Amino acid sequence: MTDLSFAARSKPNDRTARVMARLDELATLSSDGEALTRLYLTPEHKAAALKVMGWMEDAGMAASLDAVGNVVGRYAGSAPDAGTLILGSHIDTVRDAGRYDGNFGVVAAIEAVAELHARQERLAVAIEIIAFGDEEGVRFPVTLSGSRAVAGTFDPAALDVTDDAGISLRAALDAFGGDPRAIAAIGRRKADILGYVEAHIEQGPVLEAEGLPVGIVTAIAGASRFKVEVEGVAGHAGTVPMRLRRDALAAAAEMISTVERTALDAPDLVATVGRIEVQPGAVNVIPARAGFTVDLRSPSDAVRRHALGALHATFADIAARRGVSVAVVPFYDEAAAPCAPPLQQALEAAVQAEGIRPLCLPSGAGHDGLAMIALCPIAMLFVRCAGGISHNPAESIAAEDAETAVRVLVAFLRRLDRTTLSTRTP
Amino acid sequence: MTDLSFAARSKPNDRTARVMARLDELATLSSDGEALTRLYLTPEHKAAALKVMGWMEDAGMAASLDAVGNVVGRYAGSAPDAGTLILGSHIDTVRDAGRYDGNFGVVAAIEAVAELHARQERLAVAIEIIAFGDEEGVRFPVTLSGSRAVAGTFDPAALDVTDDAGISLRAALDAFGGDPRAIAAIGRRKADILGYVEAHIEQGPVLEAEGLPVGIVTAIAGASRFKVEVEGVAGHAGTVPMRLRRDALAAAAEMISTVERTALDAPDLVATVGRIEVQPGAVNVIPARAGFTVDLRSPSDAVRRHALGALHATFADIAARRGVSVAVVPFYDEAAAPCAPPLQQALEAAVQAEGIRPLCLPSGAGHDGLAMIALCPIAMLFVRCAGGISHNPAESIAAEDAETAVRVLVAFLRRLDRTTLSTRTP
Repeated sequence: MTDLSFAARSKPNDRTARVMARLDELATLSSDGEALTRLYLTPEHKAAALKVMGWMEDAGMAASLDAVGNVVGRYAGSAPDAGTLILGSHIDTVRDAGRYDGNFGVVAAIEAVAELHARQERLAVAIEIIAFGDEEGVRFPVTLSGSRAVAGTFDPAALDVTDDAGISLRAALDAFGGDPRAIAAIGRRKADILGYVEAHIEQGPVLEAEGLPVGIVTAIAGASRFKVEVEGVAGHAGTVPMRLRRDALAAAAEMISTVERTALDAPDLVATVGRIEVQPGAVNVIPARAGFTVDLRSPSDAVRRHALGALHATFADIAARRGVSVAVVPFYDEAAAPCAPPLQQALEAAVQAEGIRPLCLPSGAGHDGLAMIALCPIAMLFVRCAGGISHNPAESIAAEDAETAVRVLVAFLRRLDRTTLSTRTP
Repeated sequence: MTDLSFAARSKPNDRTARVMARLDELATLSSDGEALTRLYLTPEHKAAALKVMGWMEDAGMAASLDAVGNVVGRYAGSAPDAGTLILGSHIDTVRDAGRYDGNFGVVAAIEAVAELHARQERLAVAIEIIAFGDEEGVRFPVTLSGSRAVAGTFDPAALDVTDDAGISLRAALDAFGGDPRAIAAIGRRKADILGYVEAHIEQGPVLEAEGLPVGIVTAIAGASRFKVEVEGVAGHAGTVPMRLRRDALAAAAEMISTVERTALDAPDLVATVGRIEVQPGAVNVIPARAGFTVDLRSPSDAVRRHALGALHATFADIAARRGVSVAVVPFYDEAAAPCAPPLQQALEAAVQAEGIRPLCLPSGAGHDGLAMIALCPIAMLFVRCAGGISHNPAESIAAEDAETAVRVLVAFLRRLDRTTLSTRTP
């Protein structure tokens, strides 16, 4: 995999060290002494934004904070009317986070532009890098505020939501140095934006299992979440014969196995039961009620909807056979965001040019692309992370994989031409 | 089912009314304004004991409180050396209890003796009725204190346990009017006691389902309780493909279904999973850990032990196949207490004599017989309760069924002879 000529040109070891050092530096900007916690519009977020802005300027970009708290850097193109390609990711984190989720995509994109800048290369198209501020949605009960604002789909009602301390998003934005009144104005014109491409750690184990440093995302999965509530009849654990029972947990267990089986049997579907509660919840009492959640995701909305229908029918069958009742209460539904084939193909070619087998895989996690797809074609490059672990201080990537991802981004940018970028997905 | 000649003799309507009225009267003796809660050695327990003592005396018995807080009434036999048959049940309750659990067996036994007394009938054997005080084991972390004392198996260390208020059983017993130092002395000699027979509500739905007012117990089930702890690997609900998961809850669900299947397939076995907890317990996180309890009961210790072994093996198989670990942590084990065939047969004959099909069934719940079997042969008569509901204010029995049970007890006592009582189980 060593490309000596490339290494000679761009000092990959220095670059690799700088990428990792910057990620470590961002990780120190936390509201939590021991752990990394950096929520939207906090002082730590501001500090990280200013640092990122400086790095963008060092990479030859004009950089600023926008009205909603995003950092936007611009590397002008050689053809003034050629349009803009947006790279980026987010610099907010979950609580007790890892240091690569989001931050890696921002630092890697800056490094790719720095490479062009160092060689005084300029593409026909302009490149913008956006460091979004609200991808995790932890502080306020809204999410993707930054990318929704850029995509022109930010709902002004979101300004009135409050965090746990009662501070509204509007007030937090004012204190941060944003401009709640100017959010609508930062929505881009579709005609100007050629695409949005994000590098991100995989947050899953597939690339590691395949022995690959990077992979190309096919779609950000759509998701359905619902609660299943089973009601049976409580009874004494010793006195009610098995055939006279209407055990809510025994029914729920059968349903949970069905959820797993449905996802195992379908291509491109994952299903998770993450919570379960039973009542009355005593060792010697047959459960009267059991409630569990189901999280269903697929890059294909058709696959997800089909599974939903099949599960509802099977739950009803299981309940009827056992003489219990079942209610399904949906509480979340998000359509899949497919990546644009021309952008995917350009990423595949760039990966292949690095001598790496181009593996295509869906993203089970949500990303800013879910909002950006309302504006432009999207694509994502995944980077292997150790053990698939994310949202955890143990989150880790190899420096060589970070280097590979930067090289792929540079190759991808270089091979971009107006034809690729103007081919929108149907 | 109406037996007019019997009705004419013993005024069953008056008697029925008295049984139900006494149960209602006992239900007023509660530490809880709205609900019925009467714990061992409380003032309410004392009030109930004194009331029961009075009823015993009205039925021609010599009655007193013993050292451990039991009420003991004695109806002497005609043959001084013929030995003693003990009837009884308990007058303590769970919190927010029904009024029939325990109390019914005491009131019905008193009514049966009252019938003999009213007719100036005396059996060869003496009859004692004991109203035990600690069958539910709610106040202190010990149980069956009253019947263990009578059986001679009371552990003096139990005197040092304390209730939630820090009051020791010893202090509570002193305050009640018992005598901690004299408990050993109330243990009976095996040679003197011919048997222990208890009438009790079924606390299950079998008699109701069979359309029968009473049934004969074959054994008090033995019980095993254990916790099953499954450990897998947490993961992102969207990013970990199904085949790379080690989902602790999916494994637990399969195990829970196996528990149910094992009990459905075995005769005389019930199995209940009453509690389950998963961690981290988030909608979008694959569970790392799942813990659930299993309560296994059977009138046959061999059946129960075989099921235990089979479940352990199946749990290990499921865990191995799924790449998770499983630990089984036992926390309770009580052998079954089989009812003595001669006493069972005498109860069957008495039931049949009332024109009722004699149905034999196990008791899944524990009773004072679990302790008394160390002293003498035991037997139990079950009475139908509405919906199988117990340990609940909705607990209910029909007055006619109460009347039937009293008639069966009287017929049982009348047909007792020395031969029946001296035939111990092997």
